[in-house]
Amino acid sequence: MPSLKWDYSLYLVTDRSYIGVRDLIVCVREAIEGGVSLVQLREKIAPSREFYEMAEKLKSLTSRYNVPLIINDRLDIALAIDADGLHLGQEDLPIAVARKHIGQDKIIGISVSNVAEAIQAEKEGADYLGVGAMYATGTKIDAKLVSLAVLEKIKKAVSIPVVAIGGIKKENAVRTMETGIDGISVVSAILAAQDIEQAARELKKSYQKQTNYTKGAVLKLK
Amino acid sequence: MPSLKWDYSLYLVTDRSYIGVRDLIVCVREAIEGGVSLVQLREKIAPSREFYEMAEKLKSLTSRYNVPLIINDRLDIALAIDADGLHLGQEDLPIAVARKHIGQDKIIGISVSNVAEAIQAEKEGADYLGVGAMYATGTKIDAKLVSLAVLEKIKKAVSIPVVAIGGIKKENAVRTMETGIDGISVVSAILAAQDIEQAARELKKSYQKQTNYTKGAVLKLK
Ligand code: NI
Repeated sequence: MPSLKWDYSLYLVTDRSYIGVRDLIVCVREAIEGGVSLVQLREKIAPSREFYEMAEKLKSLTSRYNVPLIINDRLDIALAIDADGLHLGQEDLPIAVARKHIGQDKIIGISVSNVAEAIQAEKEGADYLGVGAMYATGTKIDAKLVSLAVLEKIKKAVSIPVVAIGGIKKENAVRTMETGIDGISVVSAILAAQDIEQAARELKKSYQKQTNYTKGAVLKLK
Repeated sequence: MPSLKWDYSLYLVTDRSYIGVRDLIVCVREAIEGGVSLVQLREKIAPSREFYEMAEKLKSLTSRYNVPLIINDRLDIALAIDADGLHLGQEDLPIAVARKHIGQDKIIGISVSNVAEAIQAEKEGADYLGVGAMYATGTKIDAKLVSLAVLEKIKKAVSIPVVAIGGIKKENAVRTMETGIDGISVVSAILAAQDIEQAARELKKSYQKQTNYTKGAVLKLK
């Protein structure tokens, strides 16, 4: 399982609506320099050719930084650019179909919002889970919110990495990480920031603080 | 080249906006019974899972009738259902990328609107061309129109099959076919009809009349 060596700690999901006239490649580079450990390209409007060309450009950026690039929804774009993985929502292709074409060496992540979906996704071969939406957000307006208690239950119910997504920012990052999950996934908390690199760095700091805290707690239990 | 054995004469492109509350599978079945020789599933709004499930259902229908099924734009959906082919517009994935994943045994069709694009597409490995838009249509409102003269030039410039698309109906089908092309591609002329089977049959008749006419002319020239 290639997922074990991945660093899910600060997972950036792109959304061009937050960056205004800024160049996405430049924004993502700043985010990576600030500490983003994984990038998911999400593009819901662009024609396939534009999506593909954007993905190609991002791939050469992320490769330079040794940061994995995951494509949202579109198996064909993931195949076309030889992405590191594919992220599927509950309304996207079934995992089995994606796995058949993308192979065992690539990561498949699944969006889930409850324990049943989490267990099901792991059973079907998901490499990690994106759990959300955690907090109210402009990105997915009608998304039902997942409680921290449910997030913790999901983390305990599966053995694959769990990342929380949806409205995560500096103010709630620590209490989200305290559930024992493997990382936080952010969109606007990084991309809507004036200083993207700094925003990523601050989020990363709250994560690292939390990691130390958790490690301490585990040691104590022994 | 698998395309040689294909019958491009009456090529149906789906568009759910024309069928109202009717079931797409039922509509396509009627169209095939009326003489449609090839079906392209075009779906611009549905989430990937819905597109995939629709494609699966259509595939089992078209297989029963030995009619090829082509997927518009989405290489991943074509791969997922093992479709007979993929149709790419100028804003979709490059042919080379699609070919790499879909293989040599599948058909790739390309939308073109001038001679240069046609020659380029053939050079890049297209199996057939969809030329248009020929006439004003509600399907693609801002499409520039292609003249019959350009259609004829395209047909002469390439050796792969050429199908005309865009606003083709009973009233203009014959003069379109008179350019010597291999088939006509229709959307609303079949799908918006009250009696889909009858609409397909009448279009087919105009095509067959034209084929006989052309054959006669060729014999006379000898
Ligand atoms: Ni493949």
